[in-house]
Order: sequence, then C-alpha cells, then structure tokens
Amino acid sequence: MSGSVDPMLAHGREVLASQPFSVLVGAELAALSPGRAELRLPIRQDLRQQHGFLHGGVVSYLADNALTYAGGAAMAVPVVTSEYKINYLRPAIGDTLIARAECLNRGRQQAVVRCDVFVVKDGEEKLCAVAQGTVARLGEGS
Amino acid sequence: MSGSVDPMLAHGREVLASQPFSVLVGAELAALSPGRAELRLPIRQDLRQQHGFLHGGVVSYLADNALTYAGGAAMAVPVVTSEYKINYLRPAIGDTLIARAECLNRGRQQAVVRCDVFVVKDGEEKLCAVAQGTVARLGEGS
Amino acid sequence: MSGSVDPMLAHGREVLASQPFSVLVGAELAALSPGRAELRLPIRQDLRQQHGFLHGGVVSYLADNALTYAGGAAMAVPVVTSEYKINYLRPAIGDTLIARAECLNRGRQQAVVRCDVFVVKDGEEKLCAVAQGTVARLGEGS
Amino acid sequence: MSGSVDPMLAHGREVLASQPFSVLVGAELAALSPGRAELRLPIRQDLRQQHGFLHGGVVSYLADNALTYAGGAAMAVPVVTSEYKINYLRPAIGDTLIARAECLNRGRQQAVVRCDVFVVKDGEEKLCAVAQGTVARLGEGS
Repeated sequence: MSGSVDPMLAHGREVLASQPFSVLVGAELAALSPGRAELRLPIRQDLRQQHGFLHGGVVSYLADNALTYAGGAAMAVPVVTSEYKINYLRPAIGDTLIARAECLNRGRQQAVVRCDVFVVKDGEEKLCAVAQGTVARLGEGS
Repeated sequence: MSGSVDPMLAHGREVLASQPFSVLVGAELAALSPGRAELRLPIRQDLRQQHGFLHGGVVSYLADNALTYAGGAAMAVPVVTSEYKINYLRPAIGDTLIARAECLNRGRQQAVVRCDVFVVKDGEEKLCAVAQGTVARLGEGS
Repeated sequence: MSGSVDPMLAHGREVLASQPFSVLVGAELAALSPGRAELRLPIRQDLRQQHGFLHGGVVSYLADNALTYAGGAAMAVPVVTSEYKINYLRPAIGDTLIARAECLNRGRQQAVVRCDVFVVKDGEEKLCAVAQGTVARLGEGS
Repeated sequence: MSGSVDPMLAHGREVLASQPFSVLVGAELAALSPGRAELRLPIRQDLRQQHGFLHGGVVSYLADNALTYAGGAAMAVPVVTSEYKINYLRPAIGDTLIARAECLNRGRQQAVVRCDVFVVKDGEEKLCAVAQGTVARLGEGS
C-alpha cells in the first residue's frame, strides 16, 4: 500500500520524536529492522564546531543512538547504550550524516553492536567515524 | 585582581564560544589549566531523551569536549579528539552536568586523557559517566 | 598474626592459581579488597616482543584480569570481563608490571572498572597503560 | 610456484617468530595483505582459565596483534597498537582461535582497524570477540 511504513520503523520514529534532543539536532530514522538501524542527520550551521565541520559530539550522538536502535531492534525490548567507543576518521564535511548500525551478538541482557558513520558530500558517502558498543536491556544496566 | 580571568581559560572560552554546537547546547568552560579542564552544562528540557533524563549524546558531547580541552591544554597546540570510549553509569537526572578531564600522558603527536562526568542534583554530585580517549595534534590524526 | 592472609585475597589467589594461562605468564595477585585489585607480573624474556619490551598482549592480559578481580570483589559474585578499552602510553621496559584496578560503579548485573598499569624499573613506577571496562556477573553477559 | 610464500606474508611471519610471547602462545600468521591480516592460534590447555575456556587475555592478545599487522600492512611502516577496545561475545571453546583484522582508514601517522575473532569448533567458526583500535607509526605514538 502506497505510503505505508513498516510498524517497527513507525514505532522507532515515534520514539525518536519523543526525544527532545534528537528533535533539537534534527535526526531522522531512515531504516529499522531486527538488528539494523540507519539514522540520518542533515548538517546545519548550528551543529558545527569552530573549524566549520560538524562537531564530534553530533557524530557521537548519532552513532550512539544508532547503536541503541539496532540493539533494541535485535532484542525487541527497551534498551539503553551502556558503553561505546568511537574512532573519528575524518572531519565530517558535507550535507548529511548517516549512521548505520548492525547488531553482532544478542543476549538476554545485552547486545553488542557496531556502527559506521558516513558523511555525504556531493552525493558521495565517505566513512568518517566507526563505533562499537554494548546496548543493555533497560533497568538491567550497571 | 577582581574580575580577571586566567589567559588560558579566557582563550578556551573564546574557542567554546566559536563552536556553534557548544553554544546550542549551552556548555560552559569552568576551568582550564595544563592537562585539566572542566566543562559544565545546565540541563534543559530540550536536551533530554524520552525517559526524561539527559540524552546520552549530550553526556558524550561534554565528555568528548572535556577530553579535547584537557589534552589541548596539556600539549599547548590545537588538537582534536581522535577516539574515546565512554561508559554510562547512571541516568543523568539533575540540574547540571559537569565533565572533568585530566591528561594522563602527553606526547608530541597525541595525549591520553580521562574524564569523569558528574550530574548535580540538589547540590550533590554523582558520577554518571566515565570516558577515556586520545587527543591528537590537529592535522596529525588518522 | 604473622603469615596470615586475608580470606578474600587467599580465595583470589586460589582462583588465579586455577587459571593455566595466568600460571604460564607468572601473574601474582598482590592485593584484593572490595572494588580494588592489584596484580603483578615479573617481566621475563619469553613475554617480550621483537623490540625487546613486554608484549602489549601481556599488558592487556594483566589489565583485563585486574578489571575482573576488582569488579568481582566489588560485586561479590563470579564475574567475567565483558568489554574493555586500553591505551598504551609507553613501552613496558623494566622488571615488573603492576596493574591496579578500581571499581567505579557497581550494579546488580555489572560493574564499571578502571585500571592503571605501571612498569617498575630501577624501583620506580611509571604509568604505561590505562584501561576502562565492564565486568559482568557470570552467565549474565552478552 | 609450488611452496612459494608471498614476500609480505613471509616478512610478517619472520616478525612474529621474533616475538618471544607470540612463540610462547603459538600464534601463526595465516594471511597478510595491505590492510588485512589473519592470525591463528591453536587452543592449548595452558592457555585456558579456570572455567576451561580460553583465557580472555589470549583472545585480546590475538586481536591486538591482528590489529597491528593489518594496520602495519596498510601503512607499510613499522607500527604499534596504540589503543583498542574489545567486546567478548561468548566463551572461546574450541580447537583454534582466528583473528581477522581489516584496516578501515589509513593516515600518515596512524590507521584505524577492526578485528573479528572467531573460535573454531567441530569445523564451524563462531564469532567470539570484536575489537576496534588505532595503530600508530612506531615512534610517533603518544
């Protein structure tokens, strides 16, 4: 049916819309399926740092949130990111930031997830950060 | 002298004021000395996530930025955070977030820095996240 | 009483003695109390890498094991390290490696722990690596 | 030509043979090409921990070393691992441990590398740990 949205994706978008900070920075949930998530964020002037490229904090935010979504969609329960690590590869210069996360391992209490973050410039995606972390069932964290 | 501000701190505040994203979220540089930095952030409604506490992305942002400041103040050159890891310990519920970073080791190309993030509620500080990462001389990163 | 050993430390040493790999590399448990642990390892020729200093894998092993001990002693249940991050600060050149770990936060399912690794040369301790990670109740990990 | 070995792989094996610790634990370099490396390690009784599976320190060692090889083969200069993070996914129970690392980004001073660690049991590979870290040009680290 034209215009229909997958129920898991629709629910994920409702959750994102209920996060004031995600609304503030303008993140969008582009895809969500068991163990996989894609978040997108149009790069705006007010998200930059002093050298003119996207602030690392925004890159981290998008990676962190993508980890949570992919892990939550794998575990099918409410989750939070309990820890992650990120390596910044290059300055995020472009129009859009894309974070794609994939769950590698899912347990009863937690999931381990990886995320690749790309910046899109002139229609070309470039890998600009990589993250890896743990998503924990809500209320079961540290 | 009343009202005077240390030149290193004054310069650090100018840098922070030149970061549009730091202005957007309302971060303040409370202290800066060689190898040490303290950032503060008043917790606002629009920085929260769906459960009512501060979004993890904001906690990460403040930790990341504190790492950069402490490493930069240790190396005395322009730097960027090249990588870090963060563990969230508890939800950040309160009035103010404080990130205190300390440089552990300083080389010519990079510095290794730790950061403790506290949330202040009813005047009491509680450790809510811990981070560890590498700060690299600008232009010398990966 | 001369020669007596604290029961927690005595139990910890029994556990270490039951780990064939810890016996192989010659690790010793020097101290153990709730949330704190110290492991020591005499540096031997066969633990080195090609440049003559201790292999990073041995440094990681000692940090990892110290994290497990400190977290386990904080939680008072059998645990495993579920994840950690380590930054190597300088080559480990000397006689003895010392890993000191401290639990920062303890939950029902897991604990977050930090570890400083020192190398002792000519009686002087030098910080050579720092680690941070999560220790999980056995059987409750990912 | 029958029996010939690629020069890069042959050199890598010489380096491994010059690491006393790698010889002690029995690591083998199975493959090496620009940006990629595979290390293998037959699981022996004396590499185990008290629960009968391979000690986490050995898993970390193999991941760390694979990161170094992949990064070094990408940068074509002598390197060391300067930092990494590892998540253990499941106990390493089986006959052989395999660490496959791939360089994601290569700079002049450092490279960012990921590693998947598998345990082989009854001929089947299972992912048992994942790592991500930075490899730095020797002498240019922290």
